[in-house]
Amino acid sequence: MNGRMATALCVLCLVSGCAAGFWFARMPLHEVDQDVIYQVSTIDALLQGSLEGTMTYGEMKKHGDFGIATFDRLDGEMIAFGGDFYQIKADGKVVAVTDDMTTPFGTVTFFSQDYSFPVRHAANFSDFSRQVEEVLPSKNHLYAIQIRGEFPYVMTRSIPRQETPNARLVDAAANQSIFEFRQTRGTIVGFWTPDLVRGLNVPGFHLHFLTEDRTGGGHILDFIVENATVEVDITPRFAMALPESGSYTSADLSGDLSHELDVVEKGST
Amino acid sequence: MNGRMATALCVLCLVSGCAAGFWFARMPLHEVDQDVIYQVSTIDALLQGSLEGTMTYGEMKKHGDFGIATFDRLDGEMIAFGGDFYQIKADGKVVAVTDDMTTPFGTVTFFSQDYSFPVRHAANFSDFSRQVEEVLPSKNHLYAIQIRGEFPYVMTRSIPRQETPNARLVDAAANQSIFEFRQTRGTIVGFWTPDLVRGLNVPGFHLHFLTEDRTGGGHILDFIVENATVEVDITPRFAMALPESGSYTSADLSGDLSHELDVVEKGST
Repeated sequence: MNGRMATALCVLCLVSGCAAGFWFARMPLHEVDQDVIYQVSTIDALLQGSLEGTMTYGEMKKHGDFGIATFDRLDGEMIAFGGDFYQIKADGKVVAVTDDMTTPFGTVTFFSQDYSFPVRHAANFSDFSRQVEEVLPSKNHLYAIQIRGEFPYVMTRSIPRQETPNARLVDAAANQSIFEFRQTRGTIVGFWTPDLVRGLNVPGFHLHFLTEDRTGGGHILDFIVENATVEVDITPRFAMALPESGSYTSADLSGDLSHELDVVEKGST
Repeated sequence: MNGRMATALCVLCLVSGCAAGFWFARMPLHEVDQDVIYQVSTIDALLQGSLEGTMTYGEMKKHGDFGIATFDRLDGEMIAFGGDFYQIKADGKVVAVTDDMTTPFGTVTFFSQDYSFPVRHAANFSDFSRQVEEVLPSKNHLYAIQIRGEFPYVMTRSIPRQETPNARLVDAAANQSIFEFRQTRGTIVGFWTPDLVRGLNVPGFHLHFLTEDRTGGGHILDFIVENATVEVDITPRFAMALPESGSYTSADLSGDLSHELDVVEKGST
């Protein structure tokens, strides 16, 4: 039950003279915890080719209004903020995500800025990462990150829908589309996660981009920052829903896939 | 809000003739998800000496009626089932856990058996692990495990309270008390978790024991099984609350501590 529903019920109780109204208003409610980074499946399962969507976006939206993800069979890149969810397809087009669409891997939270700080200049993604990691309050928590404004340069990618079931992500990414944006306004959304979730999520930064006019974007491979404000939501709790059927249940998740992850996430080889 | 509270509220609404009663009864409620394995902090933080209790058992009980844990400064072993929480101290005594006691690391869930199967004979912990792992439906999920009955042999340990703040777990365990039980009746409680949560929890089996008369038990180092029924709760969701203050925030959680974990959990060297 969310706060608005609780308030509505209390108002209704009071209007109707219900004896339970006052008691209910004082009850502890199981509000949805807003300081949780919630993910479906694991990055290693995605790397191993568990590409079938196992959770609807209707369900994902119950766990966050902000985040990044992919789609059934890797059909594009997802970015969400302010409760708006978008699909950036491999042909560059951006469409609204509908609740019946599904994802094999994604991460969401309810974004609420805890603090912000300026980044005057970052020459590339690595430089940005180094500067921001220096000021994170602890390397043992997870953080949601939002940056809004003008960017001198953003390079993104989007992966096309895979026709082969259970294609490995590293092979699928070899056919990705690359997009470049210069002097572009927009929003960067993503997470910084610590090494302790290696195998589950993407250690370090994982960021997606959407232009201000919401017509382009993708998974960020590189970018240049000038006079940006980085907004940070410290999220000390983590939740993970593991698929109960499909290829996930038999995927080999015992190895260390960090090299493949580097190739896929950063375009490095 | 749990089901009992919802029912009580609906009855009260109906008795008082409240107009909201029927509407409320049909509302989707945010029940506490019962199929979540919930943990506070990480095993690697405990290994690195983050021993101060950061969550009360009062809070832990909101997330499960079943589980295993330790206490502030490693003061004994915790076992819970059926909503009863016990502290097995290093002097062998067993006391009820009070809500104001705290834990630096623990794992709980609401136990609800999904299936069970017999183990006719297991000569030791390794033999038991091999037999049960063969029949787990997926190596990529987490499971709560309960075994009730008579055991030919159980060897347990309990660690005494550490006077040194931030003692490493491997050093603290060197001073553990060892207990042996023969032809004993009791309950074994614990979890099987996959490699994918390495660093966070204890991959494989992690089991605690309490005698039927609730006067002895501890963390299981070894045991023999004859004609036991293993009850399994498949728990496809995982949640983790990371401490927001204290030594956790600056602990070095970047390394691989699996060898130290083996020494501590199984008594191997």
